[in-house]
Amino acid sequence: MKKLIINLAPTGMVPTKEMTVHVPVTPEEIFNDVDKCVELGVSMVHLHARDDITGNPTYKKEVYERIIYKIREKHPNLVLVGSTSGRNFSEFEKRSQVLDIKGDLKPDMASLTMGSMNFMKVSSVNSPDMIQKLAYKMLENGIKPEIEIFSSGMLKFTQYLIKKELLKPPYYINVLVGNIATMQDDLLDIGVVKANLPEDSYFSIAGLGKCQKDMNILGMAVAHGVRTGVEDYIWMDSRKKEYATNYKLVKRVRDVADIMDIETMKPEELRNILDLEKKVI
Amino acid sequence: MKKLIINLAPTGMVPTKEMTVHVPVTPEEIFNDVDKCVELGVSMVHLHARDDITGNPTYKKEVYERIIYKIREKHPNLVLVGSTSGRNFSEFEKRSQVLDIKGDLKPDMASLTMGSMNFMKVSSVNSPDMIQKLAYKMLENGIKPEIEIFSSGMLKFTQYLIKKELLKPPYYINVLVGNIATMQDDLLDIGVVKANLPEDSYFSIAGLGKCQKDMNILGMAVAHGVRTGVEDYIWMDSRKKEYATNYKLVKRVRDVADIMDIETMKPEELRNILDLEKKVI
Repeated sequence: MKKLIINLAPTGMVPTKEMTVHVPVTPEEIFNDVDKCVELGVSMVHLHARDDITGNPTYKKEVYERIIYKIREKHPNLVLVGSTSGRNFSEFEKRSQVLDIKGDLKPDMASLTMGSMNFMKVSSVNSPDMIQKLAYKMLENGIKPEIEIFSSGMLKFTQYLIKKELLKPPYYINVLVGNIATMQDDLLDIGVVKANLPEDSYFSIAGLGKCQKDMNILGMAVAHGVRTGVEDYIWMDSRKKEYATNYKLVKRVRDVADIMDIETMKPEELRNILDLEKKVI
Repeated sequence: MKKLIINLAPTGMVPTKEMTVHVPVTPEEIFNDVDKCVELGVSMVHLHARDDITGNPTYKKEVYERIIYKIREKHPNLVLVGSTSGRNFSEFEKRSQVLDIKGDLKPDMASLTMGSMNFMKVSSVNSPDMIQKLAYKMLENGIKPEIEIFSSGMLKFTQYLIKKELLKPPYYINVLVGNIATMQDDLLDIGVVKANLPEDSYFSIAGLGKCQKDMNILGMAVAHGVRTGVEDYIWMDSRKKEYATNYKLVKRVRDVADIMDIETMKPEELRNILDLEKKVI
């Protein structure tokens, strides 16, 4: 029986406190949001670290360690994903710092965007070489990629890395739609990706910006999971009447799942299907 | 702002009392189910008439008149659709009897399936000539077609009839997926239809059989409306743990809509956007 993966993206790199007071920035704030959402049935958390003082995105592993420490202390089995985003830092050493964390604070997974693209105002460059170096380091360090797909071409590159054995099954693939310069919230775009998923993969849908709500609904109908969170949209929906909070966004998904009699996937079950190491409780 | 059309299909031609006690068969039973569902926000009802004694499908306009009389007496503006299905009766005179109803009991709309196809065990034949004769009679009698699409080819034929001016805008199109021999609950299938909808059309998605639940969710995300009802599936979902009732099926859609802050479309609003005659209240 299908169980729904809920992937919480609480922070991201873009929302600031000026934009919304509801974006959690410090390790303490991120923990507080995650903690509240865990009760609702979150399976995994897609983390971004921020500098305590400036609130700007940071690649520093010390900050990831503080976030992960706080969360793992209370929720040891929650699946935690570090970011290797190149949006603000281009050097491999910076982007891959989160992969250097060893021992109890090592993230279970790390984001791996499968190509270069534009956002509204900036380019996000992930060269073929960079992607492969990140993938290799994840493989070496026992960190599973959260494969990020913004277009069907990125899925092709994923299949190329699978052939090169830089990616190992089972695959977890996050399909991000709604960015102005990549895939839209369009059945054909998403349908092409779904039809071409590698065998033995689990996929979630994330709606960036105003399509988050519809894509959360769509994910429940046609995907293994949904991603939701203030990272993707700071409003509850396109009418911009109500600021989003991570709790409200997850609750909305959870409430619909309850009505539709769809079980959410527990972190332990997600560890199981993705072959992630079990944490000691 | 988007409002969701809820199209209730309470009876159909297939479910019998032996299969489920929850299928409403007599005009009284159909009225009772519709009446309960109206409170939840149903915009329109796709009716099928049954013989009182045998429970078998009937084309007789007297039975439609009795159903419509009962419903209109209490809910004059609810949009009511008669069936011209050829599944059990092939003759034009029988299939089109419901279109002969005049005056206060005339249905607002009537089903018009845009091609021939197979179901699991039987063929449903709608010849090009039959479709055009039905469309012409609807046009003559001021009854709007509920265009039924089971494949992208049927949409092509719809476009042909639009060119011939046998269909007039705005169009209401019901996209039916999940029948074994036609379109599936597949993003690409549905995406192709959505991408090729005629201008000035409103479309709903219906999931036949076990995909009803997922397609009800999908419809809320990507369509103007959803069709739901015991006609399409006698179970709440594919686990077959719980028998469906029309009330429970509509309530499930309505509850999700409420959580997602999606308003449902009132019958008066649907009359407005489809240019249907207003009934006196």
